This record gives sequence, C-alpha cells and structure tokens, in this order.
Amino acid sequence: MSLVVVGTVAFDAIETPFGKTDKIVGGAATYSGISASYFTKKINLVSVVGEDFPASMFDEFKKHHISTEGLQVKKGQKTFFWSGRYHVDMNTRDTLDTQLNVLLDFDPILPDSYQDCEFLMLGNLSPSVQKTVVERMNKRPKLIVMDTMNFWMDTQWDALMETISMIDVLTINDAEARQLTKEYSLVKAAQKILAMGPKYLVIKKGEHGTLLFHEDQVFFAPALPLEDVFDPTGAGDTFAGGFIGYLAQTRDISFENMKRGIIYGSAMASFCVEKFGLERILDLSQGELDERVQEFVDLVQFDIELV
Amino acid sequence: MSLVVVGTVAFDAIETPFGKTDKIVGGAATYSGISASYFTKKINLVSVVGEDFPASMFDEFKKHHISTEGLQVKKGQKTFFWSGRYHVDMNTRDTLDTQLNVLLDFDPILPDSYQDCEFLMLGNLSPSVQKTVVERMNKRPKLIVMDTMNFWMDTQWDALMETISMIDVLTINDAEARQLTKEYSLVKAAQKILAMGPKYLVIKKGEHGTLLFHEDQVFFAPALPLEDVFDPTGAGDTFAGGFIGYLAQTRDISFENMKRGIIYGSAMASFCVEKFGLERILDLSQGELDERVQEFVDLVQFDIELV
Repeated sequence: MSLVVVGTVAFDAIETPFGKTDKIVGGAATYSGISASYFTKKINLVSVVGEDFPASMFDEFKKHHISTEGLQVKKGQKTFFWSGRYHVDMNTRDTLDTQLNVLLDFDPILPDSYQDCEFLMLGNLSPSVQKTVVERMNKRPKLIVMDTMNFWMDTQWDALMETISMIDVLTINDAEARQLTKEYSLVKAAQKILAMGPKYLVIKKGEHGTLLFHEDQVFFAPALPLEDVFDPTGAGDTFAGGFIGYLAQTRDISFENMKRGIIYGSAMASFCVEKFGLERILDLSQGELDERVQEFVDLVQFDIELV
Repeated sequence: MSLVVVGTVAFDAIETPFGKTDKIVGGAATYSGISASYFTKKINLVSVVGEDFPASMFDEFKKHHISTEGLQVKKGQKTFFWSGRYHVDMNTRDTLDTQLNVLLDFDPILPDSYQDCEFLMLGNLSPSVQKTVVERMNKRPKLIVMDTMNFWMDTQWDALMETISMIDVLTINDAEARQLTKEYSLVKAAQKILAMGPKYLVIKKGEHGTLLFHEDQVFFAPALPLEDVFDPTGAGDTFAGGFIGYLAQTRDISFENMKRGIIYGSAMASFCVEKFGLERILDLSQGELDERVQEFVDLVQFDIELV
C-alpha cells in the first residue's frame, strides 16, 4: 500500500575522518524515501526545496518510484543546508552550519493522490509541521511512524508531546530517549515513552544496534560489525525508511513483523554508512539486500534447547 | 571435565549511584569460579589471599564444589584490596584505592590434583603469572581462555604479547581491543588480535553486548536490557566463568557451542549486576537460569525466510 514520507530534502556538506564532501543531496525524507523504495512501490514525498535543487534528483526519485507531487519548489529561495563534522568514533558530530532557508515557513501540502495512504513516515521536522501533516490526512493512516531529535525537546516541548501522543511508533536515539524521560535506564525510559502515547518505541543506538519496545515485549537487533563506518549521515533515516517500507509492503503491523522490519531497516542502514551520503543506497540489488539480511541472521542466531 | 580458574581473590569496596559497600569478597577468580559452578562440578581455584580472608568464604567455595587446594593463605599478610566508584553510566569508574598486598609476589601453585584439567581460565592477573600457570601444567589443556586489562598493556607489553600467543580464547573489552591494536574499528581490531595467536576473540561491550570472532565468522549477543544495573563489578569475570563453565560441561569447543557459551555467560553476567558484589550469583536456581536464557532467545529471535 502507499506510503507517505514527510521530512527534509536538503543539501549536506559532510566531513568525516575519511574525507569531506561538497554540497550533496541529503535530508531525512530523501534517505527514508530511497530506502523504502526497495520494499514498496508507491511512495509519496512531502517536503520543500529551493530553486537551487538539482533536476537530476527528480529523475532519481522517479527511478525509485517516489512521487514528488508533494515536493514544493520555492522560486527564488534556497534549499535547507546542513554542514557537520564527525569525530573519530562516528557517534558524535559537530554542526558547522545550518541554513534553514525554505524550511523557515514550510507549510506541507498533501496532494489528493496521497490521501489513500495507509503508512505515514514523519521524518525529523518541527513537531508542529509533523502534526499538520497528520491533521491534513482525510483518514488516519493504519500506521504512523515518527522520528524526532533533541533540538525539538529543547525548543518545542509542548508541541512535541502533542505530536508524540498522536502517533504509533516513535524512533529516537538512546541519548534522546534519556533526555525525553530524564531516565538513564533505557528500559525505564521506554516505559515512560510508551505512556506518552506511542504503542511502539524504537531506540536507535547507532553502532550498538536497535531496541524495539511494545507493552512488556522487547526485541534487539545489532548493527552489523563493519570494517569501517565511512559516513553515518542519514543512517537513522535509512533505517526508518526500510522499517516502514517493509511494513507497508507486507501490510502486517504485528510485533513479529516489526522485528523483521527492524532487521530490514538495519540492513539498509548498514549499506548507507559504507559510502558518503546517498551513494551506496541508490543502486542496490535484491541479491545484495538478501545477502546482507543473511549476515544479520548469521550474526545473532544460536541454538539452545531448554528443557 | 575439570576446570582450573586462576585469578584474584580479593576484597572490594564499591560505590555506585545506588549505594556503597564496606569490604566485600570479590576478585576475578571468585566471580569466574562461582559462575562456572552452575555448569561444571569440578572446579579448581588457583589464587592467594591473606590471613584476613574470611573462613566463611571457604565454605561458600566448598558449597559451589570449588577446590581451594590451590588457594594459598599467607600468614601475617593481607588480601588484595580494590576500591572504586562507578559513574552514573556504569560503564566508567574511578579507582579510589588499590592495595596489592599478597599479590605483590604471587607465585601460583598447581596441586597435583589439578593436573588433569582440560579447561583453563586465566583470569585477569599479570601476564607473567598467567604464563607461569600455563607452563606449570604437565599437559596443555584442551582450551585456555585468558582475560586481561589495559593496565598490563601499559606496563608489561612484551610479557602480555607472549602470554596472548599461548592461549586459545582472549576476552577483553572494546576499549582494550582498541588499545591493543591501535584500530578503532572492532572488526579490524579483531583481525589483528587473531593474528597474535588466539583462535577466538571475545570482545565485551558491557551494556552493549558481546562479540565473538573466529576466522571470518562473527557472532553477537546482546546484554539483557535491565531496569537498573546495580553494580557492574565482576560482570566480565562472571561472564567468562559461565562461558568456560558451559564449554567444560559440554566438552565441545566448536564455534556453534561457543555461541551457546556466550549466551550462558551473558545470562550469568545479567544476574551479577542486579545486586552488589557476589550476592546475586551465590544462590541461583536452575529455573532462574533457564528463564533468563529464554529471555535472551526472545530478545533476539526473529523469523525471516529468504528465497
């Protein structure tokens, strides 16, 4: 079924210990949309860019059967720009520059053709914009997944709480889960977050894997141990896109199927970090994806018979 | 078959965000021996204590069918003492006091009754003492597992390299693996460490789980997400004891069986951190252990059918 992906479409300039890029296309919705396209064939993008956004990227979206009807292009304005430098551990980074540009007054548009959407991915954006998108859907989607970040906890707490109360699955990282709840223990943090409204919580721990919480159940998926993490930019969004893309493809939102979604999302993220920006996830083959998922199976499977 | 456990038997004084203890019995060999006793019924301890060591602890060892024939008691001397304070993340700690006492001139004795040992656990001690123990075995054990720490990398590099080259399984934490190899990537670090001699490498990542490397194979086991980690002291040694205890019980040192050993070791460690010191692992029932292992199965198992 159709999937709507909302979030930033951006330019990034990235420095890692392995090198640096000029302005390259990034953004939460870009990573999530491309990633989801390996699972579901009807993806609808909601975002905004400036006149400086490259036409070639529209071809790339089309190639990945991503509708850009809801991607606004603002004449005379510039695309959102972020620049950052990663430390050697690749888990921490400094923001060097942020230019909101078209994001400053982003008013999301949902074309009529998007209204049959059953799955909604609210990529990282201001919680009030995320809420507007939910309100503009004629019918509530079957599943709403929301990503957010510490910035909104610092600046828009009330709006964030309101949006979080409306969604089904929250995806945040471990530091953000702690900040959101003032609990160091992720188990205690998860209990508090599930009490805020979401039925499911995904805590992303980067190289340390991913936890999925639902009621009193918990599932853990590791990150694949890689020789090098080349560039972590977009890994979380790529994970989320693979996760919801798999759920949209299978139309099964049971806990068991969400586990599979977590594994497919983790597999997509493991590709993402192997090269700068989007490069590694633009042309994956089904064979590569199957092989990567098999690596996850091999990594964690063991056989203990309890009497 | 019989298992020899070498390492410190000590007094610890521990402060955590949850409270503090007076001097309590600890030490690598204590934790490893008690943990292994849940799997194998013939455990032989090699260590040294002072006259101040409590007689009641000899009863505890006996209860866990741990022979203390190789546990030297030095008249007029004091037991090794360590005191430390954990930070709120429980992954970092400050050492407040270290009194080597009887460890200063520890010359390990291997009674004749220990010589049939097939499994040898070299708990954290100076690498020259660890080497002496290996040399004093009449017949090389079927499997030698060695733990070490950053202190020996800083102070006894050459002796450490020599001892590492003699053993089968090295267990160290992630920071130590990086220090040992000057590689940030744990995959690259593992390749370098396996080239130093050990056939297997276990990298302990604390709350982030455990990696097992062998040739081009890798296995990952998570730590159980706990509401509270009360006191991490001895968790690594408890893990190692459960791991080698399970291998000694099953007498199967295949990669597949080591995976099971990792899970049993992780289960034992998950108990250890629930209370101060040894308290939680002195009286576990088989039912508690089975239930805990089942939690590990539930935590990571998923079902994906690849075509």
